[in-house]
Amino acid sequence: MKILKDINSKNKNKFGAEILSIGSELLLGNIVNSNSQWIAEQLAILGIPHYRQTVIGDNPKRLKETILEVSNRSEILITTGGLGPTPDDITTKVIADTFNTNLEERSDILFDLKNKLKNKDRNLSESQKKQSLVPKGAEIIKNYSGTAPGIIWSPKDNFTILTFPGVPSELKEMWAKEAVKWLIKNNFSKKIISSKVLHFAGISESLLADKIQHLLKGNNPSVATYASSGEVKVRITAKGHNLEEVNRSIKPIEKELNQITGLKCFGVDNETLEEVVIKLLISRKETIAVAESCTGGGIASQLTKVSGSSKVFYGGVIAYNNLIKQSLLGVPKEMINTHGAVSKQVVEAMASGVQKIFKVNWAITVSGIAGPTGGNNLKPVGLVNFCIKGPKTLFSWEERFGSNRTREDIQKLSVINALDRLRLSIIMGN
Amino acid sequence: MKILKDINSKNKNKFGAEILSIGSELLLGNIVNSNSQWIAEQLAILGIPHYRQTVIGDNPKRLKETILEVSNRSEILITTGGLGPTPDDITTKVIADTFNTNLEERSDILFDLKNKLKNKDRNLSESQKKQSLVPKGAEIIKNYSGTAPGIIWSPKDNFTILTFPGVPSELKEMWAKEAVKWLIKNNFSKKIISSKVLHFAGISESLLADKIQHLLKGNNPSVATYASSGEVKVRITAKGHNLEEVNRSIKPIEKELNQITGLKCFGVDNETLEEVVIKLLISRKETIAVAESCTGGGIASQLTKVSGSSKVFYGGVIAYNNLIKQSLLGVPKEMINTHGAVSKQVVEAMASGVQKIFKVNWAITVSGIAGPTGGNNLKPVGLVNFCIKGPKTLFSWEERFGSNRTREDIQKLSVINALDRLRLSIIMGN
Repeated sequence: MKILKDINSKNKNKFGAEILSIGSELLLGNIVNSNSQWIAEQLAILGIPHYRQTVIGDNPKRLKETILEVSNRSEILITTGGLGPTPDDITTKVIADTFNTNLEERSDILFDLKNKLKNKDRNLSESQKKQSLVPKGAEIIKNYSGTAPGIIWSPKDNFTILTFPGVPSELKEMWAKEAVKWLIKNNFSKKIISSKVLHFAGISESLLADKIQHLLKGNNPSVATYASSGEVKVRITAKGHNLEEVNRSIKPIEKELNQITGLKCFGVDNETLEEVVIKLLISRKETIAVAESCTGGGIASQLTKVSGSSKVFYGGVIAYNNLIKQSLLGVPKEMINTHGAVSKQVVEAMASGVQKIFKVNWAITVSGIAGPTGGNNLKPVGLVNFCIKGPKTLFSWEERFGSNRTREDIQKLSVINALDRLRLSIIMGN
Repeated sequence: MKILKDINSKNKNKFGAEILSIGSELLLGNIVNSNSQWIAEQLAILGIPHYRQTVIGDNPKRLKETILEVSNRSEILITTGGLGPTPDDITTKVIADTFNTNLEERSDILFDLKNKLKNKDRNLSESQKKQSLVPKGAEIIKNYSGTAPGIIWSPKDNFTILTFPGVPSELKEMWAKEAVKWLIKNNFSKKIISSKVLHFAGISESLLADKIQHLLKGNNPSVATYASSGEVKVRITAKGHNLEEVNRSIKPIEKELNQITGLKCFGVDNETLEEVVIKLLISRKETIAVAESCTGGGIASQLTKVSGSSKVFYGGVIAYNNLIKQSLLGVPKEMINTHGAVSKQVVEAMASGVQKIFKVNWAITVSGIAGPTGGNNLKPVGLVNFCIKGPKTLFSWEERFGSNRTREDIQKLSVINALDRLRLSIIMGN
């Protein structure tokens, strides 16, 4: 097998790896393509350039076309799916056909199949046998838990195909135990790519992008922003020869980002807002309880996702009905009648109530109109009142998330907003 | 705009739709490509042939190459991603460049942007303004909740591009409110593929598959099972010339499935377990409250996702700390000491307490060990006690979800289990 030794010098026009996922179920939208995501991540870790992913159904003609295209522009093709025993599993056959090569039955695979299928004494069915056919000259990627093995095959110069089954657990095991070794041994793993993600709340993507414009123009490290509802992420990605070098180049960018954005950044990499809040409370030995109306337990539910939250989170009251706000939290009936349940006065009274009942240092309370009904001109859908009561401060505010938003969105934004303000309040020592 | 009227006769060599997802985060494996899966599903529902999906990074050269390729083999290109305000959002510009067309600033988009960004009085930043540029002659796909609109543009005969943002909620809304209408009006929706999904709880995928083996072998309609944590889905898919024909062939299969599985099926298509529970309660004019320990507000949070839930859901107590179970719910201290907080006795006492405080017809309570710590041999991680107290019955049970499961899984399974048992209890009239 001939393998390229130096990607950058020899093959300027042809390098990197592509992922090809094969299966009509992907084109029908029956399943999400998590295999491509996983392999892409592995390629990044190995520092193998990766510029394109394709999905094709169980169709020999289109599959052949695609394989030929890839063989002309990339060095490595990684396929998933279509290796099994059923008639729509056509991957190996089409790959061999594409390069006018015959399939040959491999006795070692047959032996392994018989063992796995516990068919030692009788013959395998033709469809089961199909899995032992590979193009002449191909190496085998052993399948440890499933039946269908993969292949590593170079049908032409500077082009190698690696095939994997579509079952994620089999693919992952075969990748880790076989493919990685092969890719490193054959010098495909070059520069390492690593990235760090900073998480922001309380700032929009465009405002953040404006503030860090000069950083977004950088190349190595490169900086990019991503938005999801209520949160903005900034990813710093760097290339280098080893992890130390990469981390060294990420560090100053991270520092600059933090200087520019101050406390807006709540966490790094996989850290969640609720983890940060629970950690802060644990480090201060301070406790918390909630009283939620329109978020209906959403804040509590986030906080209790964190392992160890029981140390500081005592519980809460979901006061969805106004009578509960009165009877359980001690909000005066006249206050609700005068100011409405969605008001500064009521969330403050709820906070006092919950702090008293739960005997905690911190209380956070929410009352709002999640919609789609229940709004009016003065108090539209999307209006939410919040209150944080801490050891030293009573802090209440209102948000207008907009009546064009869905109920789900308003609830989610309320939870993130509440948790982020709580984080800031705790840090400020209020 | 010139639109193909008959896909099958006129354009044998060029038909169907492709999906192109744009974003380096996909190539780095940072996120899974759920947008492609969702659009593929929508195309199947509309009966629009779909043979290929591609993922490309934020790279103008490769993006242009891919757009050209697609324009030569397919009628429709649907893109996601790259419409935002940052420098790596290049989709619209590259599409225009590919077909040598200039971008023009659209005053209607600018007006909409200013409204959304509440920047009425001052100028938008250049990066924000970028979102108002579209190729000359393109139609706009209005973005209702986000800022960046999409386009519908036919740069050449028999080829139309539809662009969408990468934010899933924006994409879905724009698709449903704008794109579907356009695709149907322009005759792209041909032979209809439609499917009905039945949702099951309280049964494993393999047990269900065994029961309906004969149905799984069918072709049109075809039947397939999918599992996610705590829930199993069965999808019945049929092809036909119109919705009536398709529905007629799905109906008997659905009926047979229901006969075989009885009450295990809790809902159809987009119906959620919490919606079904709230609907049942509303139809009976019965009210409910919760007391949650290990699920930390998860049950309440699910129930309050349902619009209109305030009619029947009064609220609840999150009794994470044992002292709260005593002080607020009236669980005797000796009971907790004797039987432990995770016990039949305690969940039953919690149910009595919450029913009394909230004056509701139904109470549902949970106490368990979500882990990863806090378990022992007798009461391992994954042990959860539940109680449902209804107008006529007190029903308590325990589940052992297994200590190998994650905290997140145990919480999620507990919520689904509780809601499904509640559904059955209400139906049984307990």
